[in-house]
Amino acid sequence: MKIAVLPGDGIGTEIVAEAVKVLDVLDLKFETESALVGGAAYEAHGHPLPESTLKLAKEADAVLFGAVGDWKYDKLDRPLRPEQAILGLRKNLGLFANFRPAICYEELVGASSLKPELIAGLDILIIRELTGDIYFGQPRGRRVATDGHFPGAEEAFDTMRYSRPEIERIARVAFDAARKRSKRVTSVDKNNVLETSQLWKDVMLDVAKEYPDVELDHMLVDNAAMQLVKAPKKFDVVVTGNMFGDILSDEAAMLTGSIGMLPSASLNSSNQGLYEPSHGSAPDIAGKGVANPLATILSAAMMLRFSLNQPEAADRIESAVKQVLASGLRTGDIWSEGTKRVGTREMGDAVVAAI
Amino acid sequence: MKIAVLPGDGIGTEIVAEAVKVLDVLDLKFETESALVGGAAYEAHGHPLPESTLKLAKEADAVLFGAVGDWKYDKLDRPLRPEQAILGLRKNLGLFANFRPAICYEELVGASSLKPELIAGLDILIIRELTGDIYFGQPRGRRVATDGHFPGAEEAFDTMRYSRPEIERIARVAFDAARKRSKRVTSVDKNNVLETSQLWKDVMLDVAKEYPDVELDHMLVDNAAMQLVKAPKKFDVVVTGNMFGDILSDEAAMLTGSIGMLPSASLNSSNQGLYEPSHGSAPDIAGKGVANPLATILSAAMMLRFSLNQPEAADRIESAVKQVLASGLRTGDIWSEGTKRVGTREMGDAVVAAI
Ligand SMILES: CC(C)[C@H](C(=O)O)[C@@H](O)C(=O)O
Ligand SMILES: CC(C)[C@H](C(=O)O)[C@@H](O)C(=O)O
Repeated sequence: MKIAVLPGDGIGTEIVAEAVKVLDVLDLKFETESALVGGAAYEAHGHPLPESTLKLAKEADAVLFGAVGDWKYDKLDRPLRPEQAILGLRKNLGLFANFRPAICYEELVGASSLKPELIAGLDILIIRELTGDIYFGQPRGRRVATDGHFPGAEEAFDTMRYSRPEIERIARVAFDAARKRSKRVTSVDKNNVLETSQLWKDVMLDVAKEYPDVELDHMLVDNAAMQLVKAPKKFDVVVTGNMFGDILSDEAAMLTGSIGMLPSASLNSSNQGLYEPSHGSAPDIAGKGVANPLATILSAAMMLRFSLNQPEAADRIESAVKQVLASGLRTGDIWSEGTKRVGTREMGDAVVAAI
Repeated sequence: MKIAVLPGDGIGTEIVAEAVKVLDVLDLKFETESALVGGAAYEAHGHPLPESTLKLAKEADAVLFGAVGDWKYDKLDRPLRPEQAILGLRKNLGLFANFRPAICYEELVGASSLKPELIAGLDILIIRELTGDIYFGQPRGRRVATDGHFPGAEEAFDTMRYSRPEIERIARVAFDAARKRSKRVTSVDKNNVLETSQLWKDVMLDVAKEYPDVELDHMLVDNAAMQLVKAPKKFDVVVTGNMFGDILSDEAAMLTGSIGMLPSASLNSSNQGLYEPSHGSAPDIAGKGVANPLATILSAAMMLRFSLNQPEAADRIESAVKQVLASGLRTGDIWSEGTKRVGTREMGDAVVAAI
């Protein structure tokens, strides 16, 4: 088995190093190979996702990804910007199913913006479709408007689109996940306005018939953004499209107050996957040894479970992380009065020790 | 001067009645005329926005709107559903500039999901473009896919689009509003993925040159959804497109904990406007006399200020509402220990008395 290790930019290298250290101590049989991605790859090869990196990712069973991006690339043409690497990987590997848990750890309740009683015990799984929607829909571009409010003016446009089988396969991912949890799925769309959302809702209802044991409800995206704030614990599995999922999964992650703890998985239909923390590259603290490696370490656990068929090893990592939290160690992002502040490397070492 | 009064469905009739009562006591010179809209209009005329209602709205200087919608219309074809009325009014009246304040009243800090220190004193103005974007963009519909992941499959699609002049005019609305406040505008888009957002950002930068005294920054929509949770008070004026504005303005409103207090205004280029509460039709509590009329009463104040050129009268309403809150009267949605619970009518009466 082969893991492609793509640390990327900013804190990416530091946090991925800790995850690799944790994987190594488990003494499993796999090979790792590293490559540049994002801004780092642009600097070295002139492209955020060089052919060689893409090839490595495609051939691997799983990709362990750090983070990409830095303000300094903001002025580049869009195809050369670091975040194109992640879009390119999703597209080329067909990673249509994104799992974004929003979990609030008992010890970290105080880090949330929300009142403790609203957030304690939160455990939401957001399933975001990741290769369709307005992210990739053609046609898109700039042109001169021929209709609309200002015919003759310069305009830009993008196409939101979903086909029935694209919605079916993500629906099944969500219903299957719900079967292993509380057997409830909330599908989020904007069917009162969008044609795409109406098809989304129709297909969700159709697929629900294959899962009579799972309860399905529908929520409009604006209402979902509100209910997440009002009563996040009412949600269990949430399934939604690429664009709405981008917004809602970040909102939900921030509600927990500890986005530095949240892993993610992006899978294709052969369970090949890309695993990355839910947070970004944080260029402001890069290289200082203070970033929280736990989201990346927990992403490695998801990788063992979903792509490498090593559920026991995944459990061991997850218990070790819980143990380390319980012992009071904290990186700066989750530190609070009465706990012990540690750096990236110490945190990784503590997880290794707990394993 | 003429006001079209469109109470709509659910609690709409009750809350609009209180706003009209408040307007009447101000003894200003205007005429009011009522008409059915939404589900109520569908029941009576077979259409949520009958020609007669649209004509009344177009001829009036301002529209005072309650709310539309009820679960029982969910099964209707989309063009007949209540919310089409509000889309039809926006489009036909050209109401491109939506003002959605998210204010946390001192007395209601406790009603928020957020910790008091994060929300106390919040005063954000979200300016949402309201007649463009994927809400109205053509083409849209269903078809057989000829490319994409599943050629030959049924698919649905919508078009996100903005032209330069559409973005320019909403940018000016935002910069003008910022001049009267803290002189800061945050423009929210998704320029790392969308062509439309890239034009949005480019035009914001261009228009900013006309306002050297106003500071402009840009934020990606997923990050905005997070920062609203993390540190809402960092925002002042936020300007964004129709779709992102729908989501973020509702998120921000719910953060205050008192969406029953939040008015909104939707204006066209001649300052003709539609004024409505930020909350919905709440069919579950309709007819019970318990709904909070203050958002609608405050919408009437915005109407006096923006469309009817009566700023002093608007001030009088707003001070009266503050006085009533200070006196401890609360409808159920904002009630807390130690305050006096009142019904819709009593709340309206209290505002009248305070004027
Ligand atoms: C970097 C960006 C293109 C990406 C997205 O919008 O999908 C990110 O926000 C995410 O959620 O993984
Ligand atoms: C009813 C619906 C069409 C509408 C919208 O999406 O604009 C509503 O959510 C709003 O924000 O006014």
